[in-house]
Amino acid sequence: MAQPQELEKPDYLTEVLTALDDGADESLRVLFADLHPAEIANVLEGIPASKRPKVWAHVPAELKGGTLLELSDSVRADLAPLMDEAAVLAAARELDIDDIADLLPELSDEAIAEVLASLDKQNRQRLDAVLSYPDDTAGGLMNVDAVTLRENITLEVVLRYLRRRGELPENTDKLFVVDRHDRFLGELRTNTLLTSDPQLRVAQVMEREAVTFPALTPQREIAAAFEDYDLVSAAVVDEDNHLLGRITVDDAVDVMREEAEHSLMASAGFTEQEDVLAPVLRSSRHRAVWLGVNLFTAFTAAWVISLFETTISKVVILAALMPIVASMGGNAGIQTLTIVIRGLALGTVTSANARRVLVKELLVGAVNGMVWACAVGLVVLLWQHDVLLAAVIAGAMVINLGFAALMGVLVPIVIGRLGIDPPLASGVILTTVTDVVGFFVFLGLASLILI
Amino acid sequence: MAQPQELEKPDYLTEVLTALDDGADESLRVLFADLHPAEIANVLEGIPASKRPKVWAHVPAELKGGTLLELSDSVRADLAPLMDEAAVLAAARELDIDDIADLLPELSDEAIAEVLASLDKQNRQRLDAVLSYPDDTAGGLMNVDAVTLRENITLEVVLRYLRRRGELPENTDKLFVVDRHDRFLGELRTNTLLTSDPQLRVAQVMEREAVTFPALTPQREIAAAFEDYDLVSAAVVDEDNHLLGRITVDDAVDVMREEAEHSLMASAGFTEQEDVLAPVLRSSRHRAVWLGVNLFTAFTAAWVISLFETTISKVVILAALMPIVASMGGNAGIQTLTIVIRGLALGTVTSANARRVLVKELLVGAVNGMVWACAVGLVVLLWQHDVLLAAVIAGAMVINLGFAALMGVLVPIVIGRLGIDPPLASGVILTTVTDVVGFFVFLGLASLILI
Repeated sequence: MAQPQELEKPDYLTEVLTALDDGADESLRVLFADLHPAEIANVLEGIPASKRPKVWAHVPAELKGGTLLELSDSVRADLAPLMDEAAVLAAARELDIDDIADLLPELSDEAIAEVLASLDKQNRQRLDAVLSYPDDTAGGLMNVDAVTLRENITLEVVLRYLRRRGELPENTDKLFVVDRHDRFLGELRTNTLLTSDPQLRVAQVMEREAVTFPALTPQREIAAAFEDYDLVSAAVVDEDNHLLGRITVDDAVDVMREEAEHSLMASAGFTEQEDVLAPVLRSSRHRAVWLGVNLFTAFTAAWVISLFETTISKVVILAALMPIVASMGGNAGIQTLTIVIRGLALGTVTSANARRVLVKELLVGAVNGMVWACAVGLVVLLWQHDVLLAAVIAGAMVINLGFAALMGVLVPIVIGRLGIDPPLASGVILTTVTDVVGFFVFLGLASLILI
Repeated sequence: MAQPQELEKPDYLTEVLTALDDGADESLRVLFADLHPAEIANVLEGIPASKRPKVWAHVPAELKGGTLLELSDSVRADLAPLMDEAAVLAAARELDIDDIADLLPELSDEAIAEVLASLDKQNRQRLDAVLSYPDDTAGGLMNVDAVTLRENITLEVVLRYLRRRGELPENTDKLFVVDRHDRFLGELRTNTLLTSDPQLRVAQVMEREAVTFPALTPQREIAAAFEDYDLVSAAVVDEDNHLLGRITVDDAVDVMREEAEHSLMASAGFTEQEDVLAPVLRSSRHRAVWLGVNLFTAFTAAWVISLFETTISKVVILAALMPIVASMGGNAGIQTLTIVIRGLALGTVTSANARRVLVKELLVGAVNGMVWACAVGLVVLLWQHDVLLAAVIAGAMVINLGFAALMGVLVPIVIGRLGIDPPLASGVILTTVTDVVGFFVFLGLASLILI
């Protein structure tokens, strides 16, 4: 069987860094003219923050809009304000209305005024429509370039209309059928149009059962629907079923990437996109809150330990062994937590089966607790030749792994209900509990049994 | 501005669990007949493993193939073998060749033989083509249903051909133009076909600059290209540029989801998909390896602490304070690690700028080290009224956060070069280092200065 191989990708980052070091700025403009905005964005993310403005100045005006859309939030916020009004207008001309709506918050008031003035009445109304919905809902994400039809015309007429109209918007796999009040009736796939008898009427070949999104559908549900139903585009409608616009698969893919990244970053305590070569002080500041929260929990654990100073002073080896109990609890708990957070996101954990998931995880915690309690007890017995000490650490392990399972299920469910983002806060709450319980139970049992 | 709202989704999981409890099995068949395979898969994932075979028996035969594709690996491996040969054949009839290739590994030898016998010669050759490539490459992912054209015919002829052919494969946004040796020449968008003058020839309107994937392109790069270039479909070619098949956006979306999930699960030590209601013993076993690895690192840290038993017996408060140094190092290191792993995955961290990223993270580590060393020192001073102790913990913090930054950058880069999956192993290696260094430096400094 053939083996996968890493393909040689052109190394634009090295080229740009070398050009910067050599002061060969003009070669940047030549290079960028051939690149896709996504590639230019990648280069900008990969060079030090201090050098980005200089490189940005060499990105061709007509690619700047697309590049901004591909940048992470913080790099975008740094670079967008550097564009003068002419540059903003040139960039906006290349973008869809929904993309312009995404960029407006980063622009100066003057630039916004210029962009608005450059749009015709219809596009200004469309932009207003997009801006009137939160940007993480169907209304905020939608494109306003849907092609619409009436149901009583023949495909022949549709074909003639499309030829006269010329080019269709990107990712158009269907046209939307509406009544004269612009109410959504169904969709006509462009491929149906290609393969059907032109004498048929739209009403005869359109699909009336279609996935549509009310304007306030949260973006997470939109991405899930695109994945589950393999959509390329879908209509966005208001509460009276009027067609407002359409969502395309590229928007859904961006949402998926954003959500996946958010979970990953949130589990390390980042609440916003963090760029890999951000200025040092900004990075330090971004991380400070999280380290502060962790410091608080670490001092809580330290305080619990300090309650047992007398015990530790009599049996010093307890100090060496106590982190084992805490860390095994933390690791087992994080495993449960990860499974539950994923289940909540996918919809396989709901209030209908939360109790069953809890029972299962408690049983897994009990099994793992026994197994690892025996393992740890045995190692401690061989190391310290103390049966009682081995029994104390084994007992503490069983109790802490049980707590870990309990918290691993309950913490994400409870904080999710409180409206807090599970990946961000769950880990730190869980490990605080497993640390505190681990130290307390182990040192407590030791005080009772060994002293 | 309107506010997002959670939309009421029908709660199929509750319905199924209630039907199960009531023994109303027949109502399951009625319910499932109306559901999408993705919804059925979600229900199966959300019920206890022991009850899945019973529910599976009520999934309509024609939906079983699609449902299997949507299930997580472990649930799929449980349920696929329960189908008899007739059921397997019924399921296979509803699937594309590339999807059949995905399911074959789960089937019994008899079932595989039946499926192969049911295909005509052309489809058997197509299946062989897909199976001859690793399943995480373009060749393994591709559909073999591409519609091809020659460049010298008119669009009129293409339109007549398509009408005679009838329905186009799902996600067909372009037809592929090939020469008489089946070599890829370019693509013709179906929308171009709709909007162009039928008298034009394919050669006049086709796009010759197209994104194509060599058969051994790794799936991660395919997903990135679909995201960057907003593709709906793209050609797969062999080393001589012969057209082999096509990748569609639904495959790319599945890869994205898989990769995102993999990173998330791997960071908690899961090497395979874990289902939320798996049997207890299987879950315990899946988690055992990871807990074993962590136990080993915990004992390493315990051993380091035990070297300083004399010191701790003299200044017992050290035992309470030492976890603070270790855990702040671990948290700071995980933050650096997360940024670097993300950068490696996105391509914003490469050998071209790794040194700059390292310098930046060391500076961030130094700044955070100073700031938090002062904070911790101050709290310890107020708590224990001991200037030397405060100085010792502050010094240990600065050193450990520096180490954390160093390891946060180096560990994922080095283990990535060794061919190990960064998210899986990086976290445990990093926290082992920050624990060991944290305990050693803190207790070592204390032994030198306080005793």
